[in-house]
Amino acid sequence: MPRYALKIEYDGTPFSGWQRQADQPSVQGAVERALSRLESDVPSIAAAGRTDAGVHALGQVAHCDLRKDWDPFRLAQALNYHLKPDPVSVVACARVGQDFHARFSAHERRYLFRLVSRRAPVTHDRGLVWQVGHPLALAPMQAAARYLLGRHDFTTFRASLCQAASPVKTLDALEISEHPYPGGAEFRFHVRARSFLHNQVRSFVGTLERVGAGAWAPEDVKTALEARNRAACGPVCPPQGLYLAGVGYDPDPFGDG
Amino acid sequence: MPRYALKIEYDGTPFSGWQRQADQPSVQGAVERALSRLESDVPSIAAAGRTDAGVHALGQVAHCDLRKDWDPFRLAQALNYHLKPDPVSVVACARVGQDFHARFSAHERRYLFRLVSRRAPVTHDRGLVWQVGHPLALAPMQAAARYLLGRHDFTTFRASLCQAASPVKTLDALEISEHPYPGGAEFRFHVRARSFLHNQVRSFVGTLERVGAGAWAPEDVKTALEARNRAACGPVCPPQGLYLAGVGYDPDPFGDG
Repeated sequence: MPRYALKIEYDGTPFSGWQRQADQPSVQGAVERALSRLESDVPSIAAAGRTDAGVHALGQVAHCDLRKDWDPFRLAQALNYHLKPDPVSVVACARVGQDFHARFSAHERRYLFRLVSRRAPVTHDRGLVWQVGHPLALAPMQAAARYLLGRHDFTTFRASLCQAASPVKTLDALEISEHPYPGGAEFRFHVRARSFLHNQVRSFVGTLERVGAGAWAPEDVKTALEARNRAACGPVCPPQGLYLAGVGYDPDPFGDG
Repeated sequence: MPRYALKIEYDGTPFSGWQRQADQPSVQGAVERALSRLESDVPSIAAAGRTDAGVHALGQVAHCDLRKDWDPFRLAQALNYHLKPDPVSVVACARVGQDFHARFSAHERRYLFRLVSRRAPVTHDRGLVWQVGHPLALAPMQAAARYLLGRHDFTTFRASLCQAASPVKTLDALEISEHPYPGGAEFRFHVRARSFLHNQVRSFVGTLERVGAGAWAPEDVKTALEARNRAACGPVCPPQGLYLAGVGYDPDPFGDG
């Protein structure tokens, strides 16, 4: 059966997460339903990252096996037609070999977190950012983020439900930038690693927000990391600012890096 | 009674427009309902621009008269509390004199229109942009826009329902910029005038889109303008990419230009 890689963008708001569940709307369920309109008995699909409820994607990657030899462009168009009105969109599609696996072939995951600081409630970005009402300082958050880079035991920043075999991961990037936002400021966290523990990005951002607010010193993040204790973590932030921004493969099936 | 100017941001999606209507949700109705939670018998409020159904605002301005001498910051906070869960937010509030009128004192209205060109349906920006599936060329749209600048009889770009006394208006700016958008491109139209005819911005953008798509030459826009005939207009584009971006007063009641 020919295998196809799909790059998928979605608004996670109405979904219980990526993973198919019996009685709840899921992104996987929406994509599999669209596939089932094209061919019968399509095997279930695998994705690079199983995003939680309310988490978005700009570049989730999944693969599927179909019987027919589809032109990738027409396959994307047909899936988008059948995905309506769900806020899920196939933004790229490529034919791949049988050795390609969306999850196991991925050598890098990139996440974006959008945090808005302003008093007045956001309107257009509701559900798309995490909003706090107090000001945040960029430089202390950047200083604290440096302690998290590299290879560490991230037990402090790992959900108690996390099923990963080991809490040791290598964090390749955690860059924070500040952007104008009407009446306030937006902070974007760009996070990159081969793989992540469950809730790791939200644990990072929730802890770094405490640093930006002045409640924690940057060095407190180092202490928390070294404690290797979930109780040392700051508050885990809500999901709605988190985006699976992209997934790295070598070679890239979509040919755009 | 003390008078207050309110700068208001809203997502127009769930509303039938700014103006209060008997059986439909409106932004004016939402703000007046919030005011009525603070004081009884609040007079109805006036706004700088009566946006249509589905049109958004980043900086709509309205004024209201209250009996109590409110601290402007606390008034904004109280209104935002009572506006929940509507996607309407008071982003600034100022005490103004009795001679201030949100509509009649305004010497400038600024609109933003967001037009996205890409194949795959947008997800996070659904309801917030107008999407077309074909590519658009920036330079011809910019060339065509130049014909519209200045003082003209804009009958061609005026809704047949328009109630303005005269079709002659002065267009001070119509700038178009191109921005990266995942898998496509976004075009932002920045439009500025003392006042506008009904549907004027949407008539401009719908016509300029035809130029960007190559269906019209830039000079065709000059011909359409000079026809002074509604039938010469291109298709009026949908409302969901349109934002009332700001309103100009002298002096600015919010002290931020």
